[in-house]
Amino acid sequence: MKAAVMGYGTIGSGVVEILEKNKDSIKNKAGEPIEVKYVLDIRDFSGDPIADKIVKDYSIIAQDPEISIVVETMGGVEPAYTFVKAMLEAGKHVATSNKALVADKGAELIALAREKQVNFLFEASVGGGIPIIRPINSCLTGDVIEEITGILNGTTNYMMTQMAEEGLEFDDVLKDAQAKGYAEKDPTADIEGHDACRKIAILTSLVCGQQVDFSDIHTEGITKISATDIKYAKAMGYAIKLLATSKKVGDTYMAMVAPHLLPVSHPLYTVNDVFNAIYVRGNMLGPAMFYGSGAGKLPTASAVVADMVDMAKHVDKNILLQWRPEKLELRDAGQGESIFFVRTNDAKEKVQEIFGDVKFVEIPEIGGEFGFITPVIKEEEFYKKIENVTTLSIIRVAE
Amino acid sequence: MKAAVMGYGTIGSGVVEILEKNKDSIKNKAGEPIEVKYVLDIRDFSGDPIADKIVKDYSIIAQDPEISIVVETMGGVEPAYTFVKAMLEAGKHVATSNKALVADKGAELIALAREKQVNFLFEASVGGGIPIIRPINSCLTGDVIEEITGILNGTTNYMMTQMAEEGLEFDDVLKDAQAKGYAEKDPTADIEGHDACRKIAILTSLVCGQQVDFSDIHTEGITKISATDIKYAKAMGYAIKLLATSKKVGDTYMAMVAPHLLPVSHPLYTVNDVFNAIYVRGNMLGPAMFYGSGAGKLPTASAVVADMVDMAKHVDKNILLQWRPEKLELRDAGQGESIFFVRTNDAKEKVQEIFGDVKFVEIPEIGGEFGFITPVIKEEEFYKKIENVTTLSIIRVAE
Repeated sequence: MKAAVMGYGTIGSGVVEILEKNKDSIKNKAGEPIEVKYVLDIRDFSGDPIADKIVKDYSIIAQDPEISIVVETMGGVEPAYTFVKAMLEAGKHVATSNKALVADKGAELIALAREKQVNFLFEASVGGGIPIIRPINSCLTGDVIEEITGILNGTTNYMMTQMAEEGLEFDDVLKDAQAKGYAEKDPTADIEGHDACRKIAILTSLVCGQQVDFSDIHTEGITKISATDIKYAKAMGYAIKLLATSKKVGDTYMAMVAPHLLPVSHPLYTVNDVFNAIYVRGNMLGPAMFYGSGAGKLPTASAVVADMVDMAKHVDKNILLQWRPEKLELRDAGQGESIFFVRTNDAKEKVQEIFGDVKFVEIPEIGGEFGFITPVIKEEEFYKKIENVTTLSIIRVAE
Repeated sequence: MKAAVMGYGTIGSGVVEILEKNKDSIKNKAGEPIEVKYVLDIRDFSGDPIADKIVKDYSIIAQDPEISIVVETMGGVEPAYTFVKAMLEAGKHVATSNKALVADKGAELIALAREKQVNFLFEASVGGGIPIIRPINSCLTGDVIEEITGILNGTTNYMMTQMAEEGLEFDDVLKDAQAKGYAEKDPTADIEGHDACRKIAILTSLVCGQQVDFSDIHTEGITKISATDIKYAKAMGYAIKLLATSKKVGDTYMAMVAPHLLPVSHPLYTVNDVFNAIYVRGNMLGPAMFYGSGAGKLPTASAVVADMVDMAKHVDKNILLQWRPEKLELRDAGQGESIFFVRTNDAKEKVQEIFGDVKFVEIPEIGGEFGFITPVIKEEEFYKKIENVTTLSIIRVAE
């Protein structure tokens, strides 16, 4: 079985490395050897063992009848979309790690793959090496999924863990994460929640079988979380995590990305550092959780290689995958109910007047302010009421 | 798509219930409706809506060309084996929740299914509703699996949790578990570790692709664990769990079922009550964990129904599954290395003389004895040395 890898960056080179290192076991599981014939990249990599496999024109791959499996690890919607589409149209199976492409063009590429009787697989696009796409598509199919809540971004989870453990401010932790290679030079996609948003859009599309537009999802990042917030969280026995969540409400879902305070009893409380975890609740299965390395070269490449093995096993067969292009209208997040933690330097009497019987939190070393936790309250009602209070920070509380 | 269910007990009736309750979503995911035409059982179930589907002769199912999917939820090797074999030979796909059947006849039934170009699936046989069989077969295929360690028996995990939380003795907790329906009248298979042993044999067979005989696996149950052991565990900050583990050693695996002391840092430390969890370490992926309901009617039936959906999607195709009948010779457990916790009323000097510099543990309220923890030591060496010490209990310590 001949394969091509488009994009020889971190993940792409990881794929080549794993295919070589685990050659025998992969051959055994795929039923035949998988060999990389081409690597598409604009760079030359002279001196690298793959140098003689480098091509710069994707049509060489598309036109080679020997190639049956193509891997896309370039990232971004274009030119990845053009290249992937050409490969599927040429009757080649495609595996990708590219969440931007999948969130944007997933439904279309799945339909094209079905038309051409090949497969478009994307296990690595969510949760890195953690099996979550295939479990949703092939394992939890007896269930109606009522909730998916995940820590889906390793960068921000590392940062929140560091802030909690070291008591540092956001900016210092970000610099540390950048120095360690966990955060990119332009960290916007991670810290503003855009990355997690695309991932929960993909997962929600898969559980409902329709297109969920990531731009419809209420998204807040972690940039407003301060060392003082962490102090309050610790005093209350909570951890702060960026959660991406999707809950079934009637015939649709309500999705959100936002930092949350998590009690010790929460299944995601202990997920630290760059690890990811996805909590899933099925109407028959009940709760389940999937945990592992959500990012990193080899874990992510491991998921891509698993897709390649699955495609080798299904070289003659399209695996049915429900993700229709009809858009699902998400329930407006403002209609949802949440619990809020608020820090304020306003008067307690005023807070009680507006929110009724709330739980106050005070930390001796932090003067001139206090925190309070609301009861369960409709989101839009909360935001209307809170307009009358001077706030220092607002963070949701997960149950 | 017409199906038959063999055995209308807890799981079998759960399968029928889920197919009815989640009918629309299952139809959507399978690509067509799945309808139960027959239920095989020796009982009549008059008054039950399925009463008119009851048949008592399995050959009626085998000979009906309309039936393409058969579910086996009878349990035990015979007559399940005879019935399942007949169904596969008649060209029908079979899904089973029966770990005894899979551990004993898995390789043979997989080969027969391949010969007949149908599928023999058994997601529900390990970990109840937790997706673990399909993740190993289809998701972690890029990896060489170096370790699988699981809490694979819900009954014993419930009992260990109760002993820890209530401070009760083994016999009292067993009675409570039986009263709640978590333990059977004859609890031997659970409390002696036989159930967990069959499950780790299945998982090990799948990761190595060869037959692993459960009778080769060193198996200890939880019957010797006492309330005093739990007191020591708590004093040291440990939990006691029945672990089933399999580790790659050279070209083979070393497998064992035994109670272990787990530190707070262990990924399975927080798995309580009837929940199961499976920790997997791949050579590329690193650590991953799968958590959920390891038993119970609907969670287990949910996994069976997921197999049915996968079979509907693969009605024309055998999914390649490596589990060759050639037996894998496991590494002898005596050759492995462990850490041991020992309770003794012997002399400390003697213990030090024999084991060198060990860590002593004493609990003020428990007089006349003490505990000690050995360094990492070869199992057979430990058992040779410990012959010279009077022991009150011996439990391994997980790292």
